[in-house]
Amino acid sequence: MISPTAEYALRAIVAIAQSSGGAVVTPTIAEITRVPPGYLPKVLQTLRRAGLVHSKRGLGGGFTLARPAEELTVLEVVNAVDPIKRIDRCPLGIDSHGTNLCPLHKRLDEATALVEQSFASTTIAELLAEPGRSTPLCQPVKPIDLAMPSKRGT
Amino acid sequence: MISPTAEYALRAIVAIAQSSGGAVVTPTIAEITRVPPGYLPKVLQTLRRAGLVHSKRGLGGGFTLARPAEELTVLEVVNAVDPIKRIDRCPLGIDSHGTNLCPLHKRLDEATALVEQSFASTTIAELLAEPGRSTPLCQPVKPIDLAMPSKRGT
Repeated sequence: MISPTAEYALRAIVAIAQSSGGAVVTPTIAEITRVPPGYLPKVLQTLRRAGLVHSKRGLGGGFTLARPAEELTVLEVVNAVDPIKRIDRCPLGIDSHGTNLCPLHKRLDEATALVEQSFASTTIAELLAEPGRSTPLCQPVKPIDLAMPSKRGT
Repeated sequence: MISPTAEYALRAIVAIAQSSGGAVVTPTIAEITRVPPGYLPKVLQTLRRAGLVHSKRGLGGGFTLARPAEELTVLEVVNAVDPIKRIDRCPLGIDSHGTNLCPLHKRLDEATALVEQSFASTTIAELLAEPGRSTPLCQPVKPIDLAMPSKRGT
């Protein structure tokens, strides 16, 4: 329902957010998220340009959230890479319809609004804090990587 | 949020459902729905194969709904051409997660469920019957076409 790119971005943000050891380097994010290698750098750069993450090169470098996970919503992450498109005008371009959507497009827009509201009301912190479930995404294969990001470049 | 193909299928179904003159031929559906010419025949054939519409060639031929619009839901139409995919297993393929989704994928699945429920609870007839809105989709440029489908082949 969301694009693969948007889902990859959410995985990456969660991987960065759940790090307690500071900046997270790209190979660690790749390991945690299992995002295809060709996609991850592009997704991370898009998130950086959107102002959601900071990146720093070199020793001790890597990616960090630009804002606290408590303030960052799922919607912001999705919209940074592949914005949810509400239907605000007749998709058929009929002048007489304009913003007065027909019932079909009104229902489709209402469904989109449900998703938008769900995503807007969920913070990344909430994804990390839910008790009694699987760890967000997956345990890294080598958990120690999270604590040792400085050994790799971004 | 739904694919262009799914939206085109919904337009086509609504165009067929709102015909009071019997079968609707492809050129009329194309005119009403404004679906790109290369897509429409494929969409209509997919709907036919899924058992949602009947087609008949020749004089008096065209497309009709296979079931009353009161019994046909938006979800059935969407699922016939581009099924909504619920997340029922960890998309990262982690064995230890399996069907026990992490909070991220659980939230994404919940949002998908909202859309699925919305579409399942809306019939095509309801789209046609809503008062006080724009006519579903658009008035055909030549309304008489709807009453004269027999002049064209499917």
